[in-house]
Amino acid sequence: MKRKGILIVVSGFSGAGKGTVMKELLNCYDNYALSISATTRKPREGEQNGREYFFKTIEEFEKMIAKDELIEYARYVGNYYGTPRSYVEKQLEAGKDVILEIEIQGALKVKKKYPETLLLFITPPNAKELKRRLIGRGTETMEVIESRMRRAAEEAEGMSDYDYIVVNDHLDICVEETHNIIQSEHNRVFRNEDLMNQIEEELRGEAKGE
Amino acid sequence: MKRKGILIVVSGFSGAGKGTVMKELLNCYDNYALSISATTRKPREGEQNGREYFFKTIEEFEKMIAKDELIEYARYVGNYYGTPRSYVEKQLEAGKDVILEIEIQGALKVKKKYPETLLLFITPPNAKELKRRLIGRGTETMEVIESRMRRAAEEAEGMSDYDYIVVNDHLDICVEETHNIIQSEHNRVFRNEDLMNQIEEELRGEAKGE
Repeated sequence: MKRKGILIVVSGFSGAGKGTVMKELLNCYDNYALSISATTRKPREGEQNGREYFFKTIEEFEKMIAKDELIEYARYVGNYYGTPRSYVEKQLEAGKDVILEIEIQGALKVKKKYPETLLLFITPPNAKELKRRLIGRGTETMEVIESRMRRAAEEAEGMSDYDYIVVNDHLDICVEETHNIIQSEHNRVFRNEDLMNQIEEELRGEAKGE
Repeated sequence: MKRKGILIVVSGFSGAGKGTVMKELLNCYDNYALSISATTRKPREGEQNGREYFFKTIEEFEKMIAKDELIEYARYVGNYYGTPRSYVEKQLEAGKDVILEIEIQGALKVKKKYPETLLLFITPPNAKELKRRLIGRGTETMEVIESRMRRAAEEAEGMSDYDYIVVNDHLDICVEETHNIIQSEHNRVFRNEDLMNQIEEELRGEAKGE
């Protein structure tokens, strides 16, 4: 029986290390595909179209919205960001588990449209560690760090809307836990209706002595 | 933060091999405890009180019912079978994941009383394989085998009430999947409210610059 892929949304506080976790997950296992977002923001130094993002003009992006070609989209600091549907659906059909890295509002929109979506939230073990990591990056002013911490405090209220929480304390453990969670989800009863119907039918046949 | 144990009910068709899977699971990993049922049926050759079952008189058993000392109980072919509460709760408090091997009616009763119970259903890959295993035991008449197959056909209708389905095709894989499912369940959001509240509180504190 062909196994269908699972759509997974991964969110987490800025500084939780979810980018690194996803990179490791894709390095270590070959059944995952990472969704690539479309955006109207300008490419940064070193970013490639089709790798970090699909870079679109506002006109192109709004055409995608009109044609319902995006699973979700949002406007953030004047730019559009969205998830192209076709790539995701193609990968799911091929049996890949597809990961979207988006924030909470987008996550809830996706779950509403695709109720079987798996929502994962990645968090550092505690707030002090989050702050330590943001400072450790060395790329941001204290002001930006404080604003990220305030944002995290807001986002934390949304954690309970997720299905699973994964603590990113040790990278290897976090990657393995994330992998196990996703793979275990393949055993959920509601994802195995075909298998159950088949067994039920066979058993009815056997019971009748067919 | 102390991790609380999960209560797990494992069911499956007679002949699905769930006894072997549970034995292997307890052999391979040390965070599990198997619940021992109380029964009024007579011990069979080689069975020990407190190992296979707690053997009770009908009077003793009915006293346990009256004192609400059983998580669930049922009468089956004239005998009582039930799950003593105290052992289960002690193990859960100690952080052990406690496994009850009971059939579907009992499973649903437990889930109603303890909504956080995890329900696992173990099945062979198909009905032919189930029959083959029942015949392979060599201990049962064809009549008994046919009646077990009919019972399986009835039980199959209850599969959709479970949380997860695990196919027991290769024992090692089945044991590993079962283990991963249970461990992944520890990451479920509703099992981590303390952790989430703690992080939320800390973040609020940090955001205020405390």
